[in-house]
Formats: sequence, structure tokens, C-alpha cells
Amino acid sequence: MRNIKLTIAYDGTDFGGWQVQPNAITVQQLLENRLEEMFRQKVKLVASGRTDAGVHALGQVANFKADTKIDIEKLPIAINSHLNNDIRVFSAEEVDEEFNSRFSAKKKTYKYQIYNSRIMNPFLSRYAYQVPYNMDYSKIEDIRKILLGEHDFKAFMSSGSDVKTTVRTIYAVDYKLKGKLLEVEITGNGFLYNMIRIIIGTLVEVCSGKRDVECFRRAIETGNREELGPTAKACGLFLKEVMYSN
Amino acid sequence: MRNIKLTIAYDGTDFGGWQVQPNAITVQQLLENRLEEMFRQKVKLVASGRTDAGVHALGQVANFKADTKIDIEKLPIAINSHLNNDIRVFSAEEVDEEFNSRFSAKKKTYKYQIYNSRIMNPFLSRYAYQVPYNMDYSKIEDIRKILLGEHDFKAFMSSGSDVKTTVRTIYAVDYKLKGKLLEVEITGNGFLYNMIRIIIGTLVEVCSGKRDVECFRRAIETGNREELGPTAKACGLFLKEVMYSN
Repeated sequence: MRNIKLTIAYDGTDFGGWQVQPNAITVQQLLENRLEEMFRQKVKLVASGRTDAGVHALGQVANFKADTKIDIEKLPIAINSHLNNDIRVFSAEEVDEEFNSRFSAKKKTYKYQIYNSRIMNPFLSRYAYQVPYNMDYSKIEDIRKILLGEHDFKAFMSSGSDVKTTVRTIYAVDYKLKGKLLEVEITGNGFLYNMIRIIIGTLVEVCSGKRDVECFRRAIETGNREELGPTAKACGLFLKEVMYSN
Repeated sequence: MRNIKLTIAYDGTDFGGWQVQPNAITVQQLLENRLEEMFRQKVKLVASGRTDAGVHALGQVANFKADTKIDIEKLPIAINSHLNNDIRVFSAEEVDEEFNSRFSAKKKTYKYQIYNSRIMNPFLSRYAYQVPYNMDYSKIEDIRKILLGEHDFKAFMSSGSDVKTTVRTIYAVDYKLKGKLLEVEITGNGFLYNMIRIIIGTLVEVCSGKRDVECFRRAIETGNREELGPTAKACGLFLKEVMYSN
């Protein structure tokens, strides 16, 4: 059995997320179907993590084991040839037997796009969260300082996930304004369920003056979800990169 | 009657183009329906020009006459509130009675996006033409020199249009490479039917080595459509701007 690692981009708009589930078309399902067709054997894809319905990926990583002599370099083109345009496998490589996309991951970077205007750009309606209020983005610098480092992010988690610890380390919070589009990138050793979307939902409330920036610090100290804003829309979120070495 | 000029962006992917026609949802139809609902009178929109099915607009201009006391500044938000996300009116202004979006236009700029890779970016599949061959973009400089100025572009026209003259002036051909994405912008005093898409279809054949760059000169001299390449896909084309003063 060979262990094969795929790097995958997808436009999540029309999917029910990554993970196989009844009554929704998911990225994992389409890829597994395609791989099973190609390899004529049962294939189980292990991803770095799930993405929810509507969330996009620029560099999702997933691996699978298969008994095959195929030239790995040719794999992306062969897989893509029978997939629709919103999923593209852009690289494939053979990895050690022990490699596991989820458990071997050391860091992940997510990107979130906010479009600040009373009138949405029709080319971004699938890819950014429209915020019509006046935003004071200078506050992001303070948010950044509070979030960086190792903290208990218990407050930054939607229910429905079962984790051993809610302590995570955030290595970087970067942001860039391109006209009306704000890109926020957050890198950490892992993220709790909806953690990025809760950070962004709160950031929007802080930058629009609805909430005080210190709510981030209070949420870390108290673990109280109510200190924070709503979970921001899925459409603005991209899994950008998964890193396997430090 | 007031004469009102709208500037409109739309993602053309799911439309049968600008112009009203049976058996297709068009941008003009959706906008006229919306305006008629608002003003409770028959509304006829005159655009700077049609865009074909699948072609996008960043700055289409259209005007209409209506008997109304509405505050023009509030018009974009009011129109957009009942349109789906792929059309946005982003400005409205009152103009002279004689203003006509089509006949008053002095210059237009179109943008065309080419994505050069064997593997398509899923976020560009609606907005760029994928070219998998090796491309030598240095040839665009020669193409640019041949196209600039006033010429008879008869060869650069698909049948199905009825025009008095096929002489047009091209003021600018600009291009920019952003990673694998090439953006070509062409500004002229007007364009024949499919002219930009024929220029691009030929540019792709020239840059990939299938055709000699001199075919552009021969096509201008002879008026022979066969000197040129195919009409490039609609999805890469954007009507970027319409200018009403020189």
C-alpha cells in the first residue's frame, strides 16, 4: 500500500462542506468516488480537518492509502479530468506510511475576507463577507496583540465538537487592506470548531464600534462565549495552508 | 421625464447576456423588471452595448427615462435590495436629456483574463480562460504595436452584426501578469461584434506558437477572418469601463 498526499483547492459555495454526510454533496465524497473509480478499490481520504458548508480551501491536504503502480506526478490531471470545476487537486506526492494529514499537521493558516461597502461587489459575493458599517481597522492591531501566543480559547468555540483541550497557540495574525477588501490571515497550531469565524465576527463588532476590544481578553480569561460576537459567515473563510514541519 | 444613468457590475456566468431575449434570463430584463416595479411605469434601459452570454461587467452603463421625484442617490441601494447577488448597481446620476449610453460613449475598455496552467484555479473558472500550453507573452508587445491606432478591423468580427463601418481606433493595449493570470486590457472608440474575443483567441495562438504574429497585420490588410484564431471563451471577458468624455 502506498500513502499518497493530495493538496486540493475548492470553491466551497455549492458544497455541504468537506466531510461525507447524507443529503449533501461534499468534497470528500466526490474525491473518494473519483479515486475509487480510478483505483478500483475502496478509498478513505483523511483530511487535515473538516471545512464547513460554504467554506473554501486554497490548500486543503488529504491523504489516502492505495495499492497502485500509478505515476504519482500524473495523478492531479487524472483526478481532475472527471471532477467539476470547483474542485482541483493541484499536487500529489508519495509520503511515509506514518503520515496522517490530520495528526501530522503542525500549523494551519486560514484567510478570511471582509468586503466593507454598502454595495457588494458581485464578483466577491461568494468569497467575502459584506460589512456595510464604517469600520475602524486600526483596532486590529490591539486584537492581534491579545490573540498572539498560547491561550485557552474555550470561549472561541461553537458547541458540537469534542476536544481534549481548548488551549491553542496563535503564531501570526496578518491583515492587508486592498481597496474595500480586508484580508485577515491567522496561523496557529490548530483551531477549535468555528474559532476563526468567531474571532472575525467579534473583530467586525469591535471595528464597527459595537464591542470593546478588551472583550477578547475577557473571553480568554473567563472562557465565556458571550463576551464575543457572532460566528461570521462561512463564505469569507478559506483554509489557506497546512504545514507539516515547524 | 428625468434621464437617469446607472453604472452596473454583473457576474455574467448565469445570464443569457445583457439584452432581453426569449428563453433566457438577461441582465436588462431583471433590471427593467425591478425599475418598473419601483416606478410603476414602463422602463426601457439603453446600455452602452450588449454583452454576450457569460460575459461580465465591472462598469456597464445604461440609462432610462422615468417620471419620478425619487432621490437619485438612494437609487442603487433601492434597486439592489431586490436583485440577486450577481448584479449590483453601484452608482446612479441624473444626466442631460440628450445623454444616450450607447451613442454618447467615446471610449470603452475591456479586460480579458487568461489563466496559464495545466490545472485550473477553481476560484477563476468562472472568470478566466484556461490555457494549458506554454505561452510566450513577450509576443504581446508586437501584437500591441500592430493593433494600436485606426484600422479597418473587418476581419475581427463575427457575422450577425450590421455596422456602417468596420474602422475602429484602438488607443491602448495593456497587459499585466499576476502569477499565472494574465490580464489584457484594450481601450478603443468602439469594438465590432466579438472583436476582443477574436483578438484574444488569436493572441493565445500566437503566444503558444501556433500562429505567426504577422497574422494580425495581414488580417487588417486583407479583411480575411481566416488569418485569425478562434473566438476566445466568454468567461474571461469583462466590460471594464465606458467613457463619455475624451
